[in-house]
Amino acid sequence: MTGNLTLLTDFYELTMMQGYYKNNVNERVVFDVFYRQNPSDGGYAICAGLEQVIEYVKGLHFDYEDISYLRGLGVFDEEFLDYLAGFHFTGDIYAIPEGCVIFPMEPLVKVVAPIMEAQLVETAILNIINHQSLIATKASRVCYAAQGDPIMEFGLRRAQGPDAGTLGARAAVIGGCAGTSNVLCAQEFDIPALGTHAHSWIMSFEDELTAFRKYAELYPNNTTLLVDTYDTLRSGVPHAIQVFEELRDAGKMPAVYGIRLDSGDLAYLSKKARKMLDDAGFPDAAICASSDLDEHLIDSLKTQGAKINSWGVGTNLITSKDCPAFGGVYKLAAIEKNGEFVPKIKLSENTWKITNPGNKTVFRIYDKENHKIKADVIALVGETISEDEDLKLFDPISTWKKTTLPAGSFTVRELPVPVFQNGQCVYESPKTMEIRQICMKEQETLWDESRRLVNPHIVYVDLSQKLWEVKNELLDAHNQGK
Amino acid sequence: MTGNLTLLTDFYELTMMQGYYKNNVNERVVFDVFYRQNPSDGGYAICAGLEQVIEYVKGLHFDYEDISYLRGLGVFDEEFLDYLAGFHFTGDIYAIPEGCVIFPMEPLVKVVAPIMEAQLVETAILNIINHQSLIATKASRVCYAAQGDPIMEFGLRRAQGPDAGTLGARAAVIGGCAGTSNVLCAQEFDIPALGTHAHSWIMSFEDELTAFRKYAELYPNNTTLLVDTYDTLRSGVPHAIQVFEELRDAGKMPAVYGIRLDSGDLAYLSKKARKMLDDAGFPDAAICASSDLDEHLIDSLKTQGAKINSWGVGTNLITSKDCPAFGGVYKLAAIEKNGEFVPKIKLSENTWKITNPGNKTVFRIYDKENHKIKADVIALVGETISEDEDLKLFDPISTWKKTTLPAGSFTVRELPVPVFQNGQCVYESPKTMEIRQICMKEQETLWDESRRLVNPHIVYVDLSQKLWEVKNELLDAHNQGK
Repeated sequence: MTGNLTLLTDFYELTMMQGYYKNNVNERVVFDVFYRQNPSDGGYAICAGLEQVIEYVKGLHFDYEDISYLRGLGVFDEEFLDYLAGFHFTGDIYAIPEGCVIFPMEPLVKVVAPIMEAQLVETAILNIINHQSLIATKASRVCYAAQGDPIMEFGLRRAQGPDAGTLGARAAVIGGCAGTSNVLCAQEFDIPALGTHAHSWIMSFEDELTAFRKYAELYPNNTTLLVDTYDTLRSGVPHAIQVFEELRDAGKMPAVYGIRLDSGDLAYLSKKARKMLDDAGFPDAAICASSDLDEHLIDSLKTQGAKINSWGVGTNLITSKDCPAFGGVYKLAAIEKNGEFVPKIKLSENTWKITNPGNKTVFRIYDKENHKIKADVIALVGETISEDEDLKLFDPISTWKKTTLPAGSFTVRELPVPVFQNGQCVYESPKTMEIRQICMKEQETLWDESRRLVNPHIVYVDLSQKLWEVKNELLDAHNQGK
Repeated sequence: MTGNLTLLTDFYELTMMQGYYKNNVNERVVFDVFYRQNPSDGGYAICAGLEQVIEYVKGLHFDYEDISYLRGLGVFDEEFLDYLAGFHFTGDIYAIPEGCVIFPMEPLVKVVAPIMEAQLVETAILNIINHQSLIATKASRVCYAAQGDPIMEFGLRRAQGPDAGTLGARAAVIGGCAGTSNVLCAQEFDIPALGTHAHSWIMSFEDELTAFRKYAELYPNNTTLLVDTYDTLRSGVPHAIQVFEELRDAGKMPAVYGIRLDSGDLAYLSKKARKMLDDAGFPDAAICASSDLDEHLIDSLKTQGAKINSWGVGTNLITSKDCPAFGGVYKLAAIEKNGEFVPKIKLSENTWKITNPGNKTVFRIYDKENHKIKADVIALVGETISEDEDLKLFDPISTWKKTTLPAGSFTVRELPVPVFQNGQCVYESPKTMEIRQICMKEQETLWDESRRLVNPHIVYVDLSQKLWEVKNELLDAHNQGK
């Protein structure tokens, strides 16, 4: 993600900006980024992309070519173009840090800024957060299925363009992958670069055995041989074993060695190959598998007792194939009048599509004993939740669903942190591998019931009593207006 | 897509390159990019991305930071790093031009280069071609469903990262979209920038009517009003009509005007809105629809007689939601020995996964009368197909399926064109809007039976007799080796 991304915005953001400019409308407003449904019918999502949002906001400026281009469209007047030429972001941004577990309806990113600025940044922020949160979530699911085996991100060739490959691999590592085959991503984000060789390596030598020998000679510390170019069990595995025997005889056993299966029935082949390797005296030879894998296939292979130690996952992870869009939206929640934020609501015939109004924050309630998530509470800024008082929770739609957490039984954490204040960045992103660690700890706060791949338990996201009242007042007011 | 993309490659390409380097293996080879299955179960695909492939190949070089980074990995030796520091592409590339209709198994891009170079470029070429061909194909399907109505690409916020939004919108326009909301894409590729306003525009004024009036005042030539913020038929459409009446009374009717529906039942709402607009004397008010559209939904709305004149399509197009990966692969087809290309084959237990060996080209056979595609023939370079002789075609797998085209009844076109020769670019990409025109003409060469959305007729892609023989000889040789 390089170059000036200021024009990475929808055209209507600029036409609306000009509209606000000409009508002298530039109140401070609150916009929330939130999503409505967990990807892949899961029980949670993982937040990612904030580092690139920060980079984008820091870099915002219309350069000479941008202004010339916009002028050429014949839609914008000179006074507005002058304003754009001097544009920079002056607002505040709050966000839930990358790697955190998140749930529907929670403001992941909150932009508090004059409406012209808040409007401009909508599209790029959504683009970045939607993409990376999608892939981080998918990676978390794939890693969960692999039960601790390392997952290697191998999807660059099938990603939706260069950024999707590079930022997608970053997000995949945040979600739990051990590393990526994408060298540009590995370089940029200081992530392990992983990989072995392709079928073309085998095919470019006179025979498979020679190709294996040459590879082992070259990479004596990590010798993983791809065994399915001609015939996995009759050619590939026997040749690999032959090379391992030669290395053993020469006293040159690699620290890390093994085979990679890239086609065929991975359950059957891995069990057969495991036995062949064990019988030949190579019980520590690793078996790596790749071939259109996703969380469900890995889960199934695990159930079938496949003898696979590490997994290369490409297309299905880097595109989140079963659910290739995150669905995050950016909605106006409040407009400042006389120094106070007046809550705004967007109606819909679908109850779950009605927005939560006001300038909000999110509290996470943990079980004090095991530090698992009990519920999240969306509240108005300024509200607090005391750990020393009983906490009443109720479902914001089915309000008869109530529960009370006794004082002292829970801990509270406010999720969003300040990222920009008055246009200045006040947040330093951790390194990607640090975010990965954060994310692993975050996932431990989920009950297994919420992590399972199919039909997971849904974590409650409630509204504070005060926010619920504000929302209902606005709904009533709209209904009376009819 | 900016910055140095040389490291946008899989790590194994570099470890294999070092392997070739150390073994003095650097014969010229032929690699083919091809795909095996049309996206979305369609009858064809559209080729796109070549312009960015050219840009990528032209820019190939390892800069100082790249070399330092690779050195730091502790896997590459200095001699090889020196080689990389002086690396540039010296090979040939042939490609089917952007916007062309393509079918499975055809070499879309062919790289003829020393194996070290050909290996390095694999991942990025696949990434670019896979992504853009996917989106161009999806756009072509969506435009086909819309039966000539303009389609506006609105997906940036849901695209898989910035490049996916920008290059995806480029590909969508190649496939037939009228323009995009993405300003960066519009600027970079000289494409119409499209859009109106969002719900937040309406919500930022005291009421809907005021917001509409202000918008009409601002954009007197193109006044499209979003009518679903509060209540489409009871509030949005009546207020829009009121504004249009005010404009008419003032003698200021916009050249282009209308409404946009963004939620609800688009068939019902568009018919009701059409009637309200007609009754008020605005039969030329356009109705634009958006809201999770794809080709099937548009097709269904057309069947239901929805009164919609133009369509904004976002998520489902920009991610190709039902099929988010194109599946293009890059396979070794031949290795030069003593000045001749020796064909190579990659076997598989799946017949359709076996590659076509040799240095190949593709001929397209058109019906001379109506210029529709009769079949494609993959042949070896040097073969020709004469229009003055009978042409025998046969299915490469079910060889009993044969047909003969009489001399004079067909025309022949060789699809690939030279793009790089000896490392020099010899091809100039047309502008994106020109490629869009080419693509429209290309689609006219398809029979309707191959364009339909569900269960289309499959166009035959045959092998020349000579190529078929070469392939069978290699298969026999492998089987005898067992």
